[in-house]
Amino acid sequence: MTQLVNVHLIPSSCDERDFSDRTAVVIDVLRASTTIVTALAAGAVEVIPRATIEDARHAAQQTRGSVLLGGERDGLPIEGFDLGNSPGEYTADRVAGRRIVFTTTNGTAAMLKCRSAQQTFIGAFVNLSALADRVRGMDEIEILCAGTRGRVSREDVLLAGAIVDRLINRHGPTVRLNDEAALARDAWRGVASTDPHNSRLASALAESRGGRRVAQIGMQNDLALAAAVDGSRIVPELDSETLRIRIAQPA
Amino acid sequence: MTQLVNVHLIPSSCDERDFSDRTAVVIDVLRASTTIVTALAAGAVEVIPRATIEDARHAAQQTRGSVLLGGERDGLPIEGFDLGNSPGEYTADRVAGRRIVFTTTNGTAAMLKCRSAQQTFIGAFVNLSALADRVRGMDEIEILCAGTRGRVSREDVLLAGAIVDRLINRHGPTVRLNDEAALARDAWRGVASTDPHNSRLASALAESRGGRRVAQIGMQNDLALAAAVDGSRIVPELDSETLRIRIAQPA
Repeated sequence: MTQLVNVHLIPSSCDERDFSDRTAVVIDVLRASTTIVTALAAGAVEVIPRATIEDARHAAQQTRGSVLLGGERDGLPIEGFDLGNSPGEYTADRVAGRRIVFTTTNGTAAMLKCRSAQQTFIGAFVNLSALADRVRGMDEIEILCAGTRGRVSREDVLLAGAIVDRLINRHGPTVRLNDEAALARDAWRGVASTDPHNSRLASALAESRGGRRVAQIGMQNDLALAAAVDGSRIVPELDSETLRIRIAQPA
Repeated sequence: MTQLVNVHLIPSSCDERDFSDRTAVVIDVLRASTTIVTALAAGAVEVIPRATIEDARHAAQQTRGSVLLGGERDGLPIEGFDLGNSPGEYTADRVAGRRIVFTTTNGTAAMLKCRSAQQTFIGAFVNLSALADRVRGMDEIEILCAGTRGRVSREDVLLAGAIVDRLINRHGPTVRLNDEAALARDAWRGVASTDPHNSRLASALAESRGGRRVAQIGMQNDLALAAAVDGSRIVPELDSETLRIRIAQPA
């Protein structure tokens, strides 16, 4: 059976209806999706994404239990929040057993765009293989790159291409791609084909607009964390009714 | 000196002001830019791009001399026009010595978006090397992919990447790329790195949304014509004042 895999390079290039009853994968490599994987891997109970700072504060007030506020605007920590958007901050001693209300400049809005999807997973290089295994065999997969303020982010597209490449390697010619998915795969192959140790991935992240921004605000270490392919088997899943992200159950 | 090379994957991702006083390259591989190169190579005096069918008819009435109307809508010839948008139609016996008023679904609108550029060139695989030679050394280059009805077209991005790759190979690390330019180059390398005879380029064109459309309307031959890398040394240039495309003079 044919499997459809569509990539959307930026949220504005698609419509909420594109996700209806499909499997969605949301990508914001630098840094929201990397941070969410890290937080859940470190024992956070759930991550509650919100589009605005105001919505996040409101959700934190409404949430029972031990809540932390996390996120960023333009890469920087938000005043009064407990945590920024560096994956390195989301250690077990900070987040284990806690709920995290989370808002970022690009990633959370992209996640909320997929509400009509049957399932929505969060992808990063740190969980690439686990994510590909989780969605393999799904009939219709929509991969949404968060981008940066409406512009295409190289690192998000490279990850989309890496996911597409893994799906193709398993399923071969029965996978049908849209042009963006084919391009993303081309781009991933252009970077990764001769790069067994991911050194070119790390430099691609560092050179990208998002990577330069992360370095500029003194968080270079986040780039190495984001480029650590397959550091985790955690696949975060957004529950579209409760709008909470938890570790996905096995298919 | 640093050279900036920016790629825009679709016209909606940039603004007319992005081109101000810069060097623009417009790409619509399937098929407008391929056809324009072919027409000028076959001896057409000039190509006069217009955004709408009505504007094209009006321009044809206003133009002195021997005028032909050419172009397409949704790939198909336009009623009452002399020529469609197949490069193969633009032979010397049809177009030599003639002026061609030209309107296509995506390409002509993209060309008209670059009006504020200092110079605007038209790029296709058929004039890849000549085009790269012509813009090499320009300080600020904006490469605009026409796309298809607001969606990214794989073939246009691959050509953008091929141009970027040639500029980098000559200038090395002094070329600064935006994320889209880096991605386009990654994608081109993913397709072309092991493909000395461009067979993968031909199949990439055939697999793309635009290529499938061209095949669907029975014009498969156009795909081979569009994939004929460096078949021509012609570089078309749009005069932003008169809005006419002629063969560029040497720099």
